[in-house]
Amino acid sequence: MAMNRIDWPYPTPGIPDHYFSRGQVPMTKEEIRVLTLAKARLGSGMIVYDIGSGTGSLAVEAARLVAPGEVLAVEVNPEACALVRENARRFGLKNVRVITGMAPAALEGLPPPDRAFIGGSGGHLEGILAACHQTLRPGGIIVLNAITVETLGTALAWGYRRGYQVEALAVNLARLEPAGRYHIWRALNPVYIVQLMTQRRHDE
Amino acid sequence: MAMNRIDWPYPTPGIPDHYFSRGQVPMTKEEIRVLTLAKARLGSGMIVYDIGSGTGSLAVEAARLVAPGEVLAVEVNPEACALVRENARRFGLKNVRVITGMAPAALEGLPPPDRAFIGGSGGHLEGILAACHQTLRPGGIIVLNAITVETLGTALAWGYRRGYQVEALAVNLARLEPAGRYHIWRALNPVYIVQLMTQRRHDE
Amino acid sequence: MAMNRIDWPYPTPGIPDHYFSRGQVPMTKEEIRVLTLAKARLGSGMIVYDIGSGTGSLAVEAARLVAPGEVLAVEVNPEACALVRENARRFGLKNVRVITGMAPAALEGLPPPDRAFIGGSGGHLEGILAACHQTLRPGGIIVLNAITVETLGTALAWGYRRGYQVEALAVNLARLEPAGRYHIWRALNPVYIVQLMTQRRHDE
Amino acid sequence: MAMNRIDWPYPTPGIPDHYFSRGQVPMTKEEIRVLTLAKARLGSGMIVYDIGSGTGSLAVEAARLVAPGEVLAVEVNPEACALVRENARRFGLKNVRVITGMAPAALEGLPPPDRAFIGGSGGHLEGILAACHQTLRPGGIIVLNAITVETLGTALAWGYRRGYQVEALAVNLARLEPAGRYHIWRALNPVYIVQLMTQRRHDE
Repeated sequence: MAMNRIDWPYPTPGIPDHYFSRGQVPMTKEEIRVLTLAKARLGSGMIVYDIGSGTGSLAVEAARLVAPGEVLAVEVNPEACALVRENARRFGLKNVRVITGMAPAALEGLPPPDRAFIGGSGGHLEGILAACHQTLRPGGIIVLNAITVETLGTALAWGYRRGYQVEALAVNLARLEPAGRYHIWRALNPVYIVQLMTQRRHDE
Repeated sequence: MAMNRIDWPYPTPGIPDHYFSRGQVPMTKEEIRVLTLAKARLGSGMIVYDIGSGTGSLAVEAARLVAPGEVLAVEVNPEACALVRENARRFGLKNVRVITGMAPAALEGLPPPDRAFIGGSGGHLEGILAACHQTLRPGGIIVLNAITVETLGTALAWGYRRGYQVEALAVNLARLEPAGRYHIWRALNPVYIVQLMTQRRHDE
Repeated sequence: MAMNRIDWPYPTPGIPDHYFSRGQVPMTKEEIRVLTLAKARLGSGMIVYDIGSGTGSLAVEAARLVAPGEVLAVEVNPEACALVRENARRFGLKNVRVITGMAPAALEGLPPPDRAFIGGSGGHLEGILAACHQTLRPGGIIVLNAITVETLGTALAWGYRRGYQVEALAVNLARLEPAGRYHIWRALNPVYIVQLMTQRRHDE
Repeated sequence: MAMNRIDWPYPTPGIPDHYFSRGQVPMTKEEIRVLTLAKARLGSGMIVYDIGSGTGSLAVEAARLVAPGEVLAVEVNPEACALVRENARRFGLKNVRVITGMAPAALEGLPPPDRAFIGGSGGHLEGILAACHQTLRPGGIIVLNAITVETLGTALAWGYRRGYQVEALAVNLARLEPAGRYHIWRALNPVYIVQLMTQRRHDE
């Protein structure tokens, strides 16, 4: 996979995984990304946090959807920060800003978000949720990807306690793969997607 | 649920199910819709077939993404045709055209598509695939939602035989649901999403 | 379904659901029952608790496997207690004893168990686990079926804190069902099976 | 894992995977084995085919359940044949007979079976099914594990055509795994379990 700029012409989310530089950094898989973006209900001009940005695949897709808004990719791992920058460049995006540091501390001073993705929390989930809650704009949405039972439990309990409208999805996907002349299913590990919506939604 | 016009301001796909009029007609669930749209890689100006349109929920989301392109919703059930029209009106869409009839016959004379969704085939899957294949534009993509083992098998075999690049996803989702003070998972039935891409993709 | 005695001649677990009287009481589905029994590693002569016995389908299968041991089916709902008795009778089992009452209180005075199934906890999961822990025999195993996120989280945390060897399974099953000439998959709701083994296992 | 004899004292199926010698040969995972055995409804004294025996983990569990009946493990790969023998020895089983050869040819001359497991078919599924059908005893059951879409389709179509009572299960399992202080789910690849029952069942 060349490092050249990629012209992905489709406005629908769902850039295939192999279009991103990955290194050894975990990446949100295409289909999980698509569902996560949908649950965030992104709109043009929004400010989006991507906390625990990893390779930045989610940041890249979000940046395309919110331009001229901005994605603030918060990531503590320097290798991952470099990947986020590289992947943003690859897709010609100027509206991904990388904040190197550990959330929630690294969130201080950032502009208040319309949306916050939480992909990694480094064990500080409650602090991160509290920090997002403090500055989240009216009608804001937090979308969290959890792969651990504990993170799911914490996120749900926190969301209910703080009065959010909580929805969640357990996602079990498998991709078709050739096996000789036949085809098997290769399972992706289960992921939970948690959507925390402020109750001031226009649509209820 | 009022029949009033809905202003759904988000460009990301993923309109909640309860925003659509349903009657007794089966509907592609929000999350399946989102994944299906992603696999179709929609773009502005495209002509899209939605074969077996049902309630038109997929047609509505596609129409928002391809405008000023057009979605041709092919549906044999008159009750469903009325729902497609109502749902398009509800979202203020002028670019959903309903073709009442049974595919593949009903496809005759339609403009060649950039994308074709196949959600229902009424037992004529091979004929429908052949008809789409005849007129599909260069770089075109067919995306098929299958709930039966037989439809999946037919679609895969057909795609390989005709030289398409075939990818498929088995989707097992569950939605969180309150149960007293606790929360259970309510499973959606498994769905297969099959993506058939012409090999002339720009990106390989 | 007649109320007559059933002669199920197979020693393998997995009695089909329709062999049991159900009423309005929730029942552990055949396949979940089979996996749950396997995780309990039952043996002849064992004393088994079945807490939250429901229809008694798990109690019936366990009783067949541990005879001349005994299954103590603890259940608070009188309708369910009657079903447990009826189902035991239907399969000709004398070694299912029904204890009408709410666990953990109802566990007092019962003989110490080799195995404990927890299928329902009525919100007293920690108390029930503590009570089982008190009297569980050396080498004992607790197997818990959880459908809620909260029960799963509590069971795992409790098991680790008390020094059990903890294993768990997330189970997503779908059964084939005819749909005209084709076949769809009908999903069962996700279930978690948690196995808590005392560390004094002979086999490590 | 030593090669010593293992004393697994539990009559319930579900011997953990690590108790078996594996080499590079694919093995039916514990939970799939348990469900597969349940669908076969094994009984004492039965003759069981295990076609495509692999490591023999299914043969071992079946042999324990049908003794003094016999399991005929048919396997073409010599390394796998050696593993079947080793695993049978390890569990002290004298009633596993290894037939080295390719089914259906290798089935010729074997005693008629009460049950037949088909785990691997080497592309000769229809021939194997036909051979089993020829000699299957009254009330016999064929249970097939399929990981490919094509095998599933062939098995279902064959079963219906020949007048079997067909049931099938799509199995998506994930096992809990520690990840630091937390726990993630590690997915097993999806497996289909197909149960083909002769209609002369005593129980309908």
